[in-house]
Amino acid sequence: MNEKALYTLNYGVYIVSTKSKDKLNGQIANVVFQITAEPPKVAVCLNKKNLTHALVVESKIFNVSVLAECCTMKLIGNFGFKSGRDIDKFKDYDYIIGKNGAPIATDSAVAYLECEIESKMDVGSHTLFVGKVTEGNLLKEDAPMTYSYYHMELKGREPETAPTYRKKQ
Amino acid sequence: MNEKALYTLNYGVYIVSTKSKDKLNGQIANVVFQITAEPPKVAVCLNKKNLTHALVVESKIFNVSVLAECCTMKLIGNFGFKSGRDIDKFKDYDYIIGKNGAPIATDSAVAYLECEIESKMDVGSHTLFVGKVTEGNLLKEDAPMTYSYYHMELKGREPETAPTYRKKQ
Repeated sequence: MNEKALYTLNYGVYIVSTKSKDKLNGQIANVVFQITAEPPKVAVCLNKKNLTHALVVESKIFNVSVLAECCTMKLIGNFGFKSGRDIDKFKDYDYIIGKNGAPIATDSAVAYLECEIESKMDVGSHTLFVGKVTEGNLLKEDAPMTYSYYHMELKGREPETAPTYRKKQ
Repeated sequence: MNEKALYTLNYGVYIVSTKSKDKLNGQIANVVFQITAEPPKVAVCLNKKNLTHALVVESKIFNVSVLAECCTMKLIGNFGFKSGRDIDKFKDYDYIIGKNGAPIATDSAVAYLECEIESKMDVGSHTLFVGKVTEGNLLKEDAPMTYSYYHMELKGREPETAPTYRKKQ
């Protein structure tokens, strides 16, 4: 198989966030998809090693912030390449608390969704969480970042825990 | 909830195809995403009403063609707005037969993947099928079509059976 065939699939760039007990956390994710229209449901794919995964399992809620093209690599570095086990990821970034009580990253975000987990599926290294969308709104007018923009324009990479991790060529 | 928040999520535009007994069929899908890197697995979301859904359940295999921006509305109309119960969708379009025996649409496709179903999840109106990627390659150099390009540039819409169906404003 030519792995490059997988690189032609399209994604956005998102922050998936949650809160369990007093711990707020969030991570960069690219696998966030609407899977039904009536009622609106969204699936997200998280690595079992990530703190956000553990907290989502506990809290049964998650929020999604849709990142804009104007988003900085610093923000992506903070949420995507550091662990909430070591730092408070929201310390230097704007957020609001959703109706479900979990944080929503608003820095460089064009929209957000609040979700309640309805079911989940173990797919090996990752879990697919399916959530009913309970709330959502637009935040600012800007182009949502695509995964190809992140790779081609920002020369971004992904951590090894990403579902779409690309081995170095 | 403001439904427009859902419209900011990013997708590609794909043909998901399969073969059961002697029937070849395929449909347009936008929810196709890689969910693990080791081994590479892909999830697709299909409406239970669609013939492709029934055939994928029977055959336990599916292929994905990643459509290019140059793809015509005629091709999208053929695979996305007609039913394989009424017509032979592959009649007027190029395809090859994959190693798994199912057709791969090659007209206006930049890449393809062949998948074997490993598990599935009932999410209401749709089923999420998880497939192990058994084969894949690039087909032509062109930009993969994004869902926002389809909406904004081609003024495309989706059938009511789409997981991301947008009600008329």
